[in-house]
Amino acid sequence: MSNLQIFLKIKLCVIIVTIIMTLNTIYAQERHVSNSRDRINSKGMALMDSQGIFVPFEFDRHALGNNDVLIEILYSGICHSDVHQALQDWTENETYPMVPGHEIAGRIVKVGKNVKNFKVGDHAGVGCMVNSCGQCNNCKVHQEQYCLKGCVFTYASKDIYHDNEITKGGYSNNIVVSEKFVIKIPKHAPLEKVAPLLCAGITTYSPIKAAKIKKNDKVAVAGFGGLGHIALQYLVAKGAKVTVFDITDNKQNEAIKMGAEKYVNVKNQKEVEKLDNSFRIIFSTIPAKFDPVMYLKMLQLDGELVLIGAPPIKDTPTLAVTPFVFTGRRKVWGTLIGGIKETQEMLNYSVKNKIYPRIEIIEPSQISDAYKKIKNGEAQFRYVIDMNKLK
Amino acid sequence: MSNLQIFLKIKLCVIIVTIIMTLNTIYAQERHVSNSRDRINSKGMALMDSQGIFVPFEFDRHALGNNDVLIEILYSGICHSDVHQALQDWTENETYPMVPGHEIAGRIVKVGKNVKNFKVGDHAGVGCMVNSCGQCNNCKVHQEQYCLKGCVFTYASKDIYHDNEITKGGYSNNIVVSEKFVIKIPKHAPLEKVAPLLCAGITTYSPIKAAKIKKNDKVAVAGFGGLGHIALQYLVAKGAKVTVFDITDNKQNEAIKMGAEKYVNVKNQKEVEKLDNSFRIIFSTIPAKFDPVMYLKMLQLDGELVLIGAPPIKDTPTLAVTPFVFTGRRKVWGTLIGGIKETQEMLNYSVKNKIYPRIEIIEPSQISDAYKKIKNGEAQFRYVIDMNKLK
Repeated sequence: MSNLQIFLKIKLCVIIVTIIMTLNTIYAQERHVSNSRDRINSKGMALMDSQGIFVPFEFDRHALGNNDVLIEILYSGICHSDVHQALQDWTENETYPMVPGHEIAGRIVKVGKNVKNFKVGDHAGVGCMVNSCGQCNNCKVHQEQYCLKGCVFTYASKDIYHDNEITKGGYSNNIVVSEKFVIKIPKHAPLEKVAPLLCAGITTYSPIKAAKIKKNDKVAVAGFGGLGHIALQYLVAKGAKVTVFDITDNKQNEAIKMGAEKYVNVKNQKEVEKLDNSFRIIFSTIPAKFDPVMYLKMLQLDGELVLIGAPPIKDTPTLAVTPFVFTGRRKVWGTLIGGIKETQEMLNYSVKNKIYPRIEIIEPSQISDAYKKIKNGEAQFRYVIDMNKLK
Repeated sequence: MSNLQIFLKIKLCVIIVTIIMTLNTIYAQERHVSNSRDRINSKGMALMDSQGIFVPFEFDRHALGNNDVLIEILYSGICHSDVHQALQDWTENETYPMVPGHEIAGRIVKVGKNVKNFKVGDHAGVGCMVNSCGQCNNCKVHQEQYCLKGCVFTYASKDIYHDNEITKGGYSNNIVVSEKFVIKIPKHAPLEKVAPLLCAGITTYSPIKAAKIKKNDKVAVAGFGGLGHIALQYLVAKGAKVTVFDITDNKQNEAIKMGAEKYVNVKNQKEVEKLDNSFRIIFSTIPAKFDPVMYLKMLQLDGELVLIGAPPIKDTPTLAVTPFVFTGRRKVWGTLIGGIKETQEMLNYSVKNKIYPRIEIIEPSQISDAYKKIKNGEAQFRYVIDMNKLK
């Protein structure tokens, strides 16, 4: 080996070491940016315990990472699941202070340097999730809500990608999220009506898509509230013949107006019995105790009961295996929101077809009252909080 | 109108009336044949109550109708569901004396005058059903077991097509059945092994077919008894990669010999946990209490838990709706035997592929003992009664 060759080899080694050191420095700087510098100040409305009373609350969020966007929140929907979670209906291990809210619509005010799909001024939304592993079999098929490592939910969830801090949701003035979990909202779409679609929309759109609903399919929606009235609109848009079930006569006019072919108060047992073996699919959006066997009987051979609403654990209906064998060839499945890709598809579809929730806009100071009404079944469709009114 | 025309008209009326009267007479004779004349004498083994003790029993069956065949029963399988039903595990309203048996193989000894598909000397089988309406949506698609008027089961069932008499099953020397509910058995097939296929075979073949199992599908069979060991053979024949679950180590060798890729004793919790999110489908043939949630967790996204075995009502597992929503996109469905057309298809497939149960032949006097062993989980696969040994 000549001296020149030795010199060149040493030179090459020096270059490689320099490159590695430079990359390391950049990486360290990036970590610094995303982990410690410039935490974001936020204010919102929080629960301090499971009593359902909201108070103004200041906190901070993780810094804007290179792939994150900062959204100024303009509207935040109140989902029935917020109420379940806040009041510990599903588990008694919730963490407080809790800032709920996963139906978020707003405007991008800052973007990380690697963000490609958003710019300042864009309208954008956040639904139920803010992160997932991106590597597992379920993430790979765009079903991040079933991430095998557990996705990070938008609030009251341990953010394993940000030092295990507990996430805080949309009843607040801003949120910082990886752009991968942000939904584009067209400028002409009404933000206050789009907000609830980020949960109630995708939660019904996803199973309706998975169920491959076709024109003239005979289907039913059980429970005509926040989820049910959006499910009805998607099903009508797809040309299905929809029966709506609820436990009151009061919602009949609204259901028929939205395109239901039939409305049945399930307290009227005789009318229910006439419907045995009738439906290809029944979507249950019921958030309270109900009788799943009654709905199973209404299914045709190979019919499906899709469980969308999740009642409080103490009231959860149960299905006994043995009778289920004898009502054979009726399927039951549950469904949890939908993936991010599908959420964007849902939003585009909804805006194109003008499918929006019926909403009532309230101020942050009215959230506690709204929770009471939702809990007592007195709410008519969806409350949306005008976050500009946050003091 | 001329006199001739009037005469011809009267003549025509007379002819029509004569035809109607003649048809009526023929119909009345046929009814007479099928309903009252020549009831068929039978003898068998019966339970007088729910204590599980069998005694010799003589009785008669409805007469041979024009569309019926009379079968001399040579072999009768003992199904776990016979034990459940005899001991009132599913309902306390069973009727006694009860002659169980719905896995029947024998030889045609007489045929009604309109019978087209069978002749004296043919080998033939009867499964779980002997009649259905033939008119409803489910019968029309050859799923008579889900007849909307209720099918007539082979024993302990009210036969609404024969004066509501209670049917008596295959633990006997003969049976008379409409040819529509009789299965052809090729002469070269071993009758004693074919008998159990008429229930255990179709009960597993039907959901495996409905589930569209493909080569290399990763599936599991839970419970390796009468149903489980036949399910395994069908799945292996279809090229699936099968894991077998049971609550003992004792059956491992047999399962591997029959083609299972893996055998897991579910009492070994660590091994079970490793299998979370693994299977496309799990077929539960378990006839006793079990934990459905453990199996649900082992399913992939969109995986299916198929409930085939029906545990006693007092031990039935239950599925809670709320956690089920959160394990979303896993389906649960039950399945009850299969239609007659499909039963014939199953039998042809089984004979062609040499798929038979492991059996132990017993005499009628040993049935009570066999029931005890099945109840205590001591039976190794299927008991078949040699009905020739009936005294």
